[in-house]
Amino acid sequence: MKNVCVIGCGMTKFGELWAKSLRDIYVEAALKSIDDAGVDHIDSMYVGTMTSGLFVGQEHVGALMADYLGVAPIPAVRIESACCSGGMAIRLGFFDIASGNSDIVLAGGIEKMTDGADVTYALATAADQEYEVYHGVTFPGLYAMIARAHMHRYGTTRTQLARVAVKNHHNGTLNPNAQFQNEVTIEQVINATMVADPITVLDSSPVSDGAACVILASEDMAKKLKKPIIKIIGSGAATDALALHCREDITTLNAVKVSAERAYKMANVSPKDINLAEVHDCFTIAEICITEELGFVEKGKGGPFIEKGNTALDSKIPVNTSGGLKSKGHPVGATGVAQAVEIVEQLRGNAGKRQVQNARIGLAQNMGGSGASSVVHIFTKA
Amino acid sequence: MKNVCVIGCGMTKFGELWAKSLRDIYVEAALKSIDDAGVDHIDSMYVGTMTSGLFVGQEHVGALMADYLGVAPIPAVRIESACCSGGMAIRLGFFDIASGNSDIVLAGGIEKMTDGADVTYALATAADQEYEVYHGVTFPGLYAMIARAHMHRYGTTRTQLARVAVKNHHNGTLNPNAQFQNEVTIEQVINATMVADPITVLDSSPVSDGAACVILASEDMAKKLKKPIIKIIGSGAATDALALHCREDITTLNAVKVSAERAYKMANVSPKDINLAEVHDCFTIAEICITEELGFVEKGKGGPFIEKGNTALDSKIPVNTSGGLKSKGHPVGATGVAQAVEIVEQLRGNAGKRQVQNARIGLAQNMGGSGASSVVHIFTKA
Repeated sequence: MKNVCVIGCGMTKFGELWAKSLRDIYVEAALKSIDDAGVDHIDSMYVGTMTSGLFVGQEHVGALMADYLGVAPIPAVRIESACCSGGMAIRLGFFDIASGNSDIVLAGGIEKMTDGADVTYALATAADQEYEVYHGVTFPGLYAMIARAHMHRYGTTRTQLARVAVKNHHNGTLNPNAQFQNEVTIEQVINATMVADPITVLDSSPVSDGAACVILASEDMAKKLKKPIIKIIGSGAATDALALHCREDITTLNAVKVSAERAYKMANVSPKDINLAEVHDCFTIAEICITEELGFVEKGKGGPFIEKGNTALDSKIPVNTSGGLKSKGHPVGATGVAQAVEIVEQLRGNAGKRQVQNARIGLAQNMGGSGASSVVHIFTKA
Repeated sequence: MKNVCVIGCGMTKFGELWAKSLRDIYVEAALKSIDDAGVDHIDSMYVGTMTSGLFVGQEHVGALMADYLGVAPIPAVRIESACCSGGMAIRLGFFDIASGNSDIVLAGGIEKMTDGADVTYALATAADQEYEVYHGVTFPGLYAMIARAHMHRYGTTRTQLARVAVKNHHNGTLNPNAQFQNEVTIEQVINATMVADPITVLDSSPVSDGAACVILASEDMAKKLKKPIIKIIGSGAATDALALHCREDITTLNAVKVSAERAYKMANVSPKDINLAEVHDCFTIAEICITEELGFVEKGKGGPFIEKGNTALDSKIPVNTSGGLKSKGHPVGATGVAQAVEIVEQLRGNAGKRQVQNARIGLAQNMGGSGASSVVHIFTKA
């Protein structure tokens, strides 16, 4: 297997990008990443998108973006794994290079969610249509059940959930690309409009437009191009039952656990080696569960862990320095790639006011639906 | 790059499968392929689906199928490139093994089109939404324009178009999995209900439900399992402008041409080495254009070529022995994988009444939309 590096990255600002279409947004991020890498061609492209068919009536997004980016006839394909479509696009670009087929690959993610579709229905297609959606469940409802079970079993508190939003909003104020640039308080989160008890609107990631892209290259090619090299040393993916009722324990995100174990094994590192992580905080409870599954803290202790500030920007393991999905925004297909962009910028030392000092190894964890799919990548400074 | 083989295949009957849901259909084909390969595990799965979100309100199909097939937590992801989603699923499974990451991969395709969605709209999302679909164009309309241009420029006749349907319906009568099991005549095709002049309903592939799966393995693993080995010696993919008006010449399917050139180069073979081919005859004109782009006949001569019987079952280069999309059916995401199933069964000598004698090298060409993406695989008996 050939070694694979990230040699360029770019993203749009996340938010309500009313004036820009699906293709405009993607091309903007793609051109930034190409410019950043300084390459004059790419060999193939992987585009993560969750449900452009339902959001804007457009499938066939791989070819469309190759067309509008002006890189046809290169091979281009759309990758979908609900909200971890972006992370999976990176993983498949990784295999393309690792196999020796391509030297330079663009892996991108895009979602345009604000164009008028029924967003709650469109997102619910990531859950089990026959056993969950048909009966009226929505994603805030699913995560509310996980949160209630976690509170019941482990004593996780309402305040601990809110802490995730407070931390991530703070980090978002330091990220010019974040959708929200405002701090929130514990009281504001708890007293915000209720969505599905105990989840309020401030426990939830927003509806967003945006795109993010990375340029991957074989290590040989990266050296030839004399680019600063951020190496992908681990890639792990896994699945779980879509429907919560099919899982042995709904407070366990097994796909996250297994995908992380695989990535750690490939990278030959352990959780204590990780200097910073971007994780899939689609709702505040998700970040708490994920810090447990990634092995940053033992099972059930995620609430107190964050409450004590163990994942803050100046802590031993800063989590979601970008602001996370909560504050940076969550254009679903773009999220996994935007996580990689944040890790790469941090490892390069380009993260401005939110720079983590002396970071050498970073992890990105991207998840689909209520955790039925997960992909983890581990990056290191060469 | 590691060598990759097909060691198992399976498919459902294609047709209007009212009694079966999306997951039922996929699992049926997947279990057949696993049984055929005789494997006790798979390492990862790639599922080609065009627009399950619009057809049945279900995205996240990779994880869903891993769940219902009982193979979670293996990595599983959905691949989309409109009607060549299936072919692209095989290609990405190929890279997964070629890179050394996996030893055994299930590459499948599925579509459930008859569950009540607006099929014409759902399919149109493979065209350019902003420049084509919004203005009212449909796929029969796009291919009708290609057909008229081909007739105008090269003298292709109405009868020659109809010949494609007649041949493929004949082959379909020999395939128990084909949706249609009836012969049609030139007169019936020409006088059938008009869809978009000159394309009648009998020039068009049908709306279908169905799934097809192949089990891919590294050559080392295939030898260890002592399975009959069909090797994938070439894989090529390419893209083109989605919107017809952006192409220099609408009778040229450049993505087909480039994807074929890449596959021939990787396989180190030329068009004259191919003993049989499955090609993407979504409309009769498509098969004529594709035989030209694949190099079986020179540009513009595809009409007379088929009229003279050069692609019939007993000819030098039989095309669409399975019945093709026209007669076997076209559950869009499944089509590319079903083409591979046909080639593998032919190379194994298991094709029953439609068996091509002494076939050693077979080609499968799968296309998205009006040709904005194409993938070609070349298979050989080891």
